[in-house]
Amino acid sequence: MDIQSLPSKLLESAVQEMSSLPSVGRKTALRLVLHLLKQPREQVERFGMSFITLRNEVKKCRVCGNISDSDTCRVCSNPRRDHSTVCVVESIKDVMSIEGTGLYSGVYHVLGGIISPIDGVGPSDLTFDELVARVATGSVKEVIVALSTTMEGETTAYYLYKKLHEYSVQISALARGVGFGDELEYTDEITLGRSIKNRTPFENIFGSRQ
Amino acid sequence: MDIQSLPSKLLESAVQEMSSLPSVGRKTALRLVLHLLKQPREQVERFGMSFITLRNEVKKCRVCGNISDSDTCRVCSNPRRDHSTVCVVESIKDVMSIEGTGLYSGVYHVLGGIISPIDGVGPSDLTFDELVARVATGSVKEVIVALSTTMEGETTAYYLYKKLHEYSVQISALARGVGFGDELEYTDEITLGRSIKNRTPFENIFGSRQ
Repeated sequence: MDIQSLPSKLLESAVQEMSSLPSVGRKTALRLVLHLLKQPREQVERFGMSFITLRNEVKKCRVCGNISDSDTCRVCSNPRRDHSTVCVVESIKDVMSIEGTGLYSGVYHVLGGIISPIDGVGPSDLTFDELVARVATGSVKEVIVALSTTMEGETTAYYLYKKLHEYSVQISALARGVGFGDELEYTDEITLGRSIKNRTPFENIFGSRQ
Repeated sequence: MDIQSLPSKLLESAVQEMSSLPSVGRKTALRLVLHLLKQPREQVERFGMSFITLRNEVKKCRVCGNISDSDTCRVCSNPRRDHSTVCVVESIKDVMSIEGTGLYSGVYHVLGGIISPIDGVGPSDLTFDELVARVATGSVKEVIVALSTTMEGETTAYYLYKKLHEYSVQISALARGVGFGDELEYTDEITLGRSIKNRTPFENIFGSRQ
């Protein structure tokens, strides 16, 4: 299909916008746009406006940085959550992942990224100061560092540790080990070595799987 | 990731709209919407409005049914095209495919679908009458039936033939045979049998490949 020259400029610009989405190529974009073109006007109106409304009206929680419809997010405004335990994550996606486990009852702090000199992201681009301010109030007992175990994640975790260790707060990290469904044969040596060294009583495993 | 309960109703409705697109699941939709959320407001505005504008303002060519920014499409308003040869296709996608070959200089007629009792599409839902009217003017010398070689495509082609054979117009179909890049070993018997029977002088093959 010759998708270089479309029969309409309006179609061309819609296809260009659609293919600006990550992992949507020009061919897929054309298919999606032609699908929209077959829908009733009201539905296309609803489709287009939903993103514009989201972008213009969604808020960031003033406490943790999670996205929210109001000034304070659902988690931070929930009195039944443990506000003395703060889990530090890179992005709102990670909040959703951890909430999805149903096993965490504390609150969050969204950094908005990780330190990555290659991508030009330094500490000042992230919400470290806000986190330190939360800890400095003295109401936080534990900070859980829940960052990816990549080079950038480890760097960010270390920076976090240096920023926070002068306060009287417990700093912990996610447990490292063999993942659920992993085959030992294909587990890397560092992970396997650490999980033998830090082996856990059987009861703890069953407890955490509920 | 728990994508059942999103932290914002605005996010929820944007994700629902995005996942209404074909082959976009809820997880992909969330990823795409979170990407949009990181873009500048003007860009998200442009993104959303492009589809709404397209749906509200794009026109159907009054001659052939192809989509167009004006009343008559680029092909139909081009005096250098051969207006006496009409290629009948199912959809505007097929117009783009044939235009993409660069080897067709006639005009088109977009049926808007094919006869498919299972999907509730009958002849009255398609633009047969418009095609007959075009042929009845006497200005059309040849109608090329370029439909899929599925059961529904063949049925539609036969219906078309019955509608048109009383007029003095040449009715032809796309050449059937082995596709470019096909391995003979895996070509079905009907196709292979037909392509032996309707074998072509070597010069024709090279001529059509330019």
